[in-house]
Amino acid sequence: MAQRIQPKLVKGMRDQVGAAVARRHDLIQTARRVFERFGFQPLETPVVEYEQTLTGVKAGETGQRIYTWHMAEDDVHLGLRFDLTVPLARFVAGNRELRRPFKRYQTGPVFRVDKPGAGRFREFHQFDIDVVGTPSMMADAEIVVAMGTVLAELGLPDYTIRWNHRGVLNAALTRAGVPDDMATPVIRVIDKEDKIGAEGVRAELGPGRIDAESGAKIDGLGLPREQIDGIVEFLQISADTDDALVAKVVELLGDVKGSADALREVAELRQFLSTEAAVCDRIKFEPRLARGMDYYTGPIFEASLDALPAYGSIMGGGRYNQLVSRFSGEQLPATGASIGVDRLLAALDELSGERRRGTVTDVLVTTMDKKLTPHYLELVRELRQGGLNAEVFLKPKARLGDQLRYASEWGIPFAVIVGSDELESGIVTVKDLEAGKEASTDVEDRAQWVEERPGQFELPRTELLARLRQLLGRD
Amino acid sequence: MAQRIQPKLVKGMRDQVGAAVARRHDLIQTARRVFERFGFQPLETPVVEYEQTLTGVKAGETGQRIYTWHMAEDDVHLGLRFDLTVPLARFVAGNRELRRPFKRYQTGPVFRVDKPGAGRFREFHQFDIDVVGTPSMMADAEIVVAMGTVLAELGLPDYTIRWNHRGVLNAALTRAGVPDDMATPVIRVIDKEDKIGAEGVRAELGPGRIDAESGAKIDGLGLPREQIDGIVEFLQISADTDDALVAKVVELLGDVKGSADALREVAELRQFLSTEAAVCDRIKFEPRLARGMDYYTGPIFEASLDALPAYGSIMGGGRYNQLVSRFSGEQLPATGASIGVDRLLAALDELSGERRRGTVTDVLVTTMDKKLTPHYLELVRELRQGGLNAEVFLKPKARLGDQLRYASEWGIPFAVIVGSDELESGIVTVKDLEAGKEASTDVEDRAQWVEERPGQFELPRTELLARLRQLLGRD
Repeated sequence: MAQRIQPKLVKGMRDQVGAAVARRHDLIQTARRVFERFGFQPLETPVVEYEQTLTGVKAGETGQRIYTWHMAEDDVHLGLRFDLTVPLARFVAGNRELRRPFKRYQTGPVFRVDKPGAGRFREFHQFDIDVVGTPSMMADAEIVVAMGTVLAELGLPDYTIRWNHRGVLNAALTRAGVPDDMATPVIRVIDKEDKIGAEGVRAELGPGRIDAESGAKIDGLGLPREQIDGIVEFLQISADTDDALVAKVVELLGDVKGSADALREVAELRQFLSTEAAVCDRIKFEPRLARGMDYYTGPIFEASLDALPAYGSIMGGGRYNQLVSRFSGEQLPATGASIGVDRLLAALDELSGERRRGTVTDVLVTTMDKKLTPHYLELVRELRQGGLNAEVFLKPKARLGDQLRYASEWGIPFAVIVGSDELESGIVTVKDLEAGKEASTDVEDRAQWVEERPGQFELPRTELLARLRQLLGRD
Repeated sequence: MAQRIQPKLVKGMRDQVGAAVARRHDLIQTARRVFERFGFQPLETPVVEYEQTLTGVKAGETGQRIYTWHMAEDDVHLGLRFDLTVPLARFVAGNRELRRPFKRYQTGPVFRVDKPGAGRFREFHQFDIDVVGTPSMMADAEIVVAMGTVLAELGLPDYTIRWNHRGVLNAALTRAGVPDDMATPVIRVIDKEDKIGAEGVRAELGPGRIDAESGAKIDGLGLPREQIDGIVEFLQISADTDDALVAKVVELLGDVKGSADALREVAELRQFLSTEAAVCDRIKFEPRLARGMDYYTGPIFEASLDALPAYGSIMGGGRYNQLVSRFSGEQLPATGASIGVDRLLAALDELSGERRRGTVTDVLVTTMDKKLTPHYLELVRELRQGGLNAEVFLKPKARLGDQLRYASEWGIPFAVIVGSDELESGIVTVKDLEAGKEASTDVEDRAQWVEERPGQFELPRTELLARLRQLLGRD
């Protein structure tokens, strides 16, 4: 006997089949349509890049653990991309004739050698949009408005996009007297306000605190009282409207050295966003927002769903300027955002409240009699032309029970049964497999169940399509 | 100065940007929609598989040169998939609880270490559909009908799908007395009939021939005269209708030992296909069709475009049974097809006759005056809401010439110019960049050109959207 190979998935990888994949495709298709309407060009780059492109001059410079190898045939060191930003940088740096600004979106698989865990895989999808080569706040406004438009077109109108400017937080810390080398740890504490509250922030900026839940001692930064007061004063800033809030921030920070550019950009971005009537009431200026400060140089933004605050940020990004510095040393202005595709899909599922079907198929036409095959093919064609995803069972001699098990295990909601009697009478039988399954757990008496056949009903063949469309909520 | 990294593409790889990518996405989206309507489940598998999954028990068993490496951290040998059939086999063999038949489509990048050349890359896209786990001709009929439906929905109604059965050709050779070990070379000669004609086939089956173009001597197979006559008799078989052709083939080959199953399947498949009124007149039984005989075990089929015969097969496939044999030794019946996505895209471009734009953007709104930015944002929003892909130039202080060069180099067809005068008068200026470019090569006198400004016209702002939609052929 020949040696057999184990059909195993590589560690940390996954297969996906059926409706889960279709839903991701649909989401990506909606986003594509919006971004193309906004004039973002689709970009596709290879999955494989030179290792040095990925890791930087010093190996591991980017801090990512990635798949790399030496390809003996070409004597080159290769690797799999770990994000879509590095390939964008390589593309922009390598195509200097490309007229800027360059607006692009890109989606595709990326690879990281992380510890696999629930919902965490070593290959996963990213979806990025970026505008490269302009310092204008118009570009940041476009990113924010496009994000909002995607959420609205996904049927998620109750989102909030919060935005801030890195320079605002920097100026607030300068005003409070915080030394530059303390900015990053202070911002990390501010970022926890949602979780630990204003008192928690005050404690962690100062002497530290005891965590109520774990009882653990959390060290504080030990800032002097005046600095803490200054920071907290800034964090408490609020106003009824975004315009008033911008005005207050400008008033508070206007005298801080080096704050002029940031405050001008905040005012400009606020003006541009305020013209977008369709989305502007869901966009909030949030001077406390602290997102990823090591990386960003200007505006930052993130979107969340009002009904699902626990999902946190489902899209986010900001302005940065080190995009191509690895290749050319140039400080090229750029701004962009990433969509958390998997998180957004989970949110859509949770909000819809529908049972997640395994399959894309709406209805199975069972095959009771091989001689009737042309009739089954005609019936399934009629259902497809009526806009349903329909399949005919592709083994004509299979027992009905096996066919219904097939439908049930794949999660196909309806099965249609036509035998020669039904063909003659023009009456077909429909099985609602979900209702049948629920009923079968209720009914104790097997004989009664068989007699009543829950979830099963008959109707004229001529009414089948309309009735199925109605039952599936397609009308 | 820090060391810089060269922003280079890996050998054999490519970047793609703009409309070329959008067109591929659109094609894939159309195919997805059709296959889901037919009840094919989308499947996604990782790009990375174990090397042994890819290469078979003996390294190189599949004859593909692939990317492989040893991953020290997990001490495993990995590789990049070179097609979508091996991952399907690994998935089916590894998920035996999956109720069959299993119908799936899959699309994505695959990787081969081939010699790069014009239009040949080491990473490219495949799109496959397969039905696994049923011997029924209904499955083959579904594949053929789905292929035709995709072509029709892509706006390519003038296609032909030719089909045959491996058993028909085998029986024809048996009937002519060709020994089994000569079947493969004989079929290779038959496969060349389109190119070399009936006389060429006769010569190559017999003594050989001198190629008219190159003058080279082509060795013949040296078959005896009676065998050649028998083969040629079969190749000349024809009839007015497919039903008559099937009847003739059955008559001719009905007595050949071992032909019964194949002839029954041919008759069955013909019956199933004849019920599909919408596509059946584009589907032709072709007893000469010889496609990939080492691999296939039953029906084979391929699609071509009537207007572009030189493109050859743009989709094709057939029935096979060795899918999972590498993993389980099982002979699992399966049938499927591949879409030649890149070839189909090239064909769509050639048939449309349109200039291939570089960009997805239909219209650029230029920015003449920074103070008018809110008006530009409003104008671009209006165009987007009107269904156009529109962008506003994202650098408000750029010179008009630079903005028009941006539009021209990206291939944006129209630019809209609004200054403060235009805003007041309600009249906007539209530049047709393609017409302007063509005119500029005609006009010798620069002064005349500037005065006439070819490709430029004015119209009321209120009429802009309707006029642009009309010019872009969107109505």
